Amino acid sequence: MLLARDPDEQKVGRALPDKKDNEFLEGAIMDLTTDAHSHHISQQFNDELEHVKNHLLEMGGLVERQVGDAIKAIIEADSELAVTVRANDKRINQMEIDIDEECTRIIARRQPAASDLRLVIAASKAVADLERIGDESAKIARLAMKLCEEGEAPRGYVEIRHIGDRVRRMTQQALTAFARLDVDTALEVAQEDKDVDLEYESVMREMV
Amino acid sequence: MLLARDPDEQKVGRALPDKKDNEFLEGAIMDLTTDAHSHHISQQFNDELEHVKNHLLEMGGLVERQVGDAIKAIIEADSELAVTVRANDKRINQMEIDIDEECTRIIARRQPAASDLRLVIAASKAVADLERIGDESAKIARLAMKLCEEGEAPRGYVEIRHIGDRVRRMTQQALTAFARLDVDTALEVAQEDKDVDLEYESVMREMV
Repeated sequence: MLLARDPDEQKVGRALPDKKDNEFLEGAIMDLTTDAHSHHISQQFNDELEHVKNHLLEMGGLVERQVGDAIKAIIEADSELAVTVRANDKRINQMEIDIDEECTRIIARRQPAASDLRLVIAASKAVADLERIGDESAKIARLAMKLCEEGEAPRGYVEIRHIGDRVRRMTQQALTAFARLDVDTALEVAQEDKDVDLEYESVMREMV
Repeated sequence: MLLARDPDEQKVGRALPDKKDNEFLEGAIMDLTTDAHSHHISQQFNDELEHVKNHLLEMGGLVERQVGDAIKAIIEADSELAVTVRANDKRINQMEIDIDEECTRIIARRQPAASDLRLVIAASKAVADLERIGDESAKIARLAMKLCEEGEAPRGYVEIRHIGDRVRRMTQQALTAFARLDVDTALEVAQEDKDVDLEYESVMREMV
């Protein structure tokens, strides 16, 4: 379900910070050049849409790292890492506000139609979801800090690592699906979510 | 923070179904006449905005009932009620899709600006949140069904009732805040959320 590529627009990707830190983002940026939203008469409008997408993927990359770090903090009883996760959450919250504002501004000024409008509305909703994933990561980090204070080893060590890895990968995949407008990948994430629910239930049964 | 009332527009409320079933909705509908979005040159546009708001409040009323019923099902081990909650969830999911579609259509056709645009975008985000509250209610209902099958009495009976009531009231209050565009009530809900988090943590500590 990938759309045709346009190699001329790869320069967009170079504007994104922390590119080298995140292999996923590099892939996603390449894919930003493939979508149907790259050809508007107004280059300015084009740039604004690209900026929203890049900004969202940057936020997504940070959220994905937060999920991974929160899990690492709880498994390795690393309270320093947990503190970092909690501190980063503020940055994520601010990113949500900024991107949301960007989306509203684009709709108000450019009055996009059809697929452009849907893209901007989808971005505005996706950042709310990303913010919530960030929130949950911060909660896990707080739990890690508590466990460190109490000197308790977490129960269900292996299970936390396994489900945590899956969820982190799902976040990554969901962002890839968004960047590539790839329906098949999106459907895979939805299926994976059901599997994670089942795994969670089975772990809870074992632990109770 | 309430805005001036316009008694002429109360007829909007009469179109909403199940009005008598839900005292909150009656109040909310009255308040729909108070906001700043009631005066457009195009009566058609006016009607469309009113329809989105009424539709959202109708969905909200249903979600609020789902929260209450799910809690009731688990506390009273009422598996029949739990089945009803799960069945209603499909209706809520469909309402989200419908209202979201309505919002996108309004933006595309009417190209609203300023506060109208923000209202429509807010509605589009709020229905996503309502859908999720509905999802969680369905999960609680599923838990109730399991407990009924296993013949287990739920632990933390009193705590579930107390937190459940608070959350149901918060849902109601959040919808009132939306209907009245009432910032103070919205801030109260945000504060209440922190209190619920604290209560949840304290209950979890007692139970572990």
